[in-house]
Amino acid sequence: MNLLVTLDSKYIKPLKVMLFSLFMNNPDEDFHVYLIHSSIKDDEIADIERFVSTYGQKLFVIKIDDGYFQDAPVIFHYTKEMYYRLLAYKFLPKELDRILYLDPDVLVINPIRELYETELDGYLYAAAFHNVLAVKEINRIRLYPYKIDAYFNSGVLLMNLELQRKLVDEKAIYAFIEKNRTKLIMPDQDIINTLYSKQIKSLDEKLYNYDTRYYNYYKVITNNTCDMDFIMKNTVILHFCGKKKPWKKGYSGKFYALYKHYEKKAIPL
Amino acid sequence: MNLLVTLDSKYIKPLKVMLFSLFMNNPDEDFHVYLIHSSIKDDEIADIERFVSTYGQKLFVIKIDDGYFQDAPVIFHYTKEMYYRLLAYKFLPKELDRILYLDPDVLVINPIRELYETELDGYLYAAAFHNVLAVKEINRIRLYPYKIDAYFNSGVLLMNLELQRKLVDEKAIYAFIEKNRTKLIMPDQDIINTLYSKQIKSLDEKLYNYDTRYYNYYKVITNNTCDMDFIMKNTVILHFCGKKKPWKKGYSGKFYALYKHYEKKAIPL
Repeated sequence: MNLLVTLDSKYIKPLKVMLFSLFMNNPDEDFHVYLIHSSIKDDEIADIERFVSTYGQKLFVIKIDDGYFQDAPVIFHYTKEMYYRLLAYKFLPKELDRILYLDPDVLVINPIRELYETELDGYLYAAAFHNVLAVKEINRIRLYPYKIDAYFNSGVLLMNLELQRKLVDEKAIYAFIEKNRTKLIMPDQDIINTLYSKQIKSLDEKLYNYDTRYYNYYKVITNNTCDMDFIMKNTVILHFCGKKKPWKKGYSGKFYALYKHYEKKAIPL
Repeated sequence: MNLLVTLDSKYIKPLKVMLFSLFMNNPDEDFHVYLIHSSIKDDEIADIERFVSTYGQKLFVIKIDDGYFQDAPVIFHYTKEMYYRLLAYKFLPKELDRILYLDPDVLVINPIRELYETELDGYLYAAAFHNVLAVKEINRIRLYPYKIDAYFNSGVLLMNLELQRKLVDEKAIYAFIEKNRTKLIMPDQDIINTLYSKQIKSLDEKLYNYDTRYYNYYKVITNNTCDMDFIMKNTVILHFCGKKKPWKKGYSGKFYALYKHYEKKAIPL
């Protein structure tokens, strides 16, 4: 399976925890992990390479030249790395037909193959939207006049690279950013949701992009079906969304112990 | 390493979760698991045997004849199984010099060898006492006139079998129970704490018998040292004490997700 990650040095530790959880809960799978970056140092890359090979998996590193995005618009404090996810198809080997992008702030706690093999006929992406009412409304208003039925979360993104090569247009993305620069909050996610929302196949967030902040909410809206038992049996990806992160001091939350246990096993020292 | 468990059919599922966590976090160790029981059915025993051998470990089953404890006093609703822990040395092979008893409501999340090799010179047991003030006081008053400095928890009990064969006296235990039957709450634990308290070596509860109900308490009394990070790195045994159990509906607690994740991996269906 092809896996895509894009990050800078600050996220190497969470990346390891994420990969470790993926490998442990998918022991019979072969993963090709593609890392797209521009600023990670050589010794850090070597460290990630060692880590991945410890588990018998393969890492492919794609370094983006600083000059590549020099004509692309930059918004606020967002770096050019936001383009890596949107334009990954340009940098990845031409023979790849699909890849699963994962944020480093997720844990993979169950087999991922079914997600990876999701039928993508005619879709550019498969993703989950977080159905919390407030989030939906805020984004609908914020991104008006673009029609948004659902605001997809781009932290777990299955990509149809074949179709992207045909349909996704670098220039259209730049033009969109120029036009909307004042109202974009999460630029890459906003772009996917406005320019390509009709071509995103919807995934069940409870299975593939479970927002760990909303345990009680998920339970209530499912009449207690989505309880801890359900999650551990069915949820594949836990997503530690939001500003508070489980690898930082002072975090608390329903999945804190689970995260820290994986962290300790991924990074023993 | 020798491991002792004593249980009835109701605890087979938690037993598997406990053993699974032990095996996963001690991958290079050989375990001889001794199961002392009187009422578990043959097909259930076969199931436990299969489970243990799946992980390359050995199970030894010791069935206690119903008649064995017919002269022993029985208190309230407590069954004769409470004697199995106290008198295990009588049923275990004579060549064993030590064994680690574990309750089935624990998770083993780190290597256990250091605990197993605790120096036991002159001690019958090694155990941890739960230092919560209220618990200590209640037991001190309840078990007066026996002098109790600490009330040890018998859920994790390293046993010096050699010394027990010399010093632990079945008759003295029966006599003690007859005399105190009205005030015993947890008979086996009470007996260890009154008759043998001076011969119990004290273990650090934060490492070897972490009471999962008291996360905030442990944090406060250690000036935030014993936080989630510390626990996952150092704590070997999490003990789900109390009436609320993580395998039952409606449980909640800091270590719920971690427990359920282990449960799912131990018992996939």
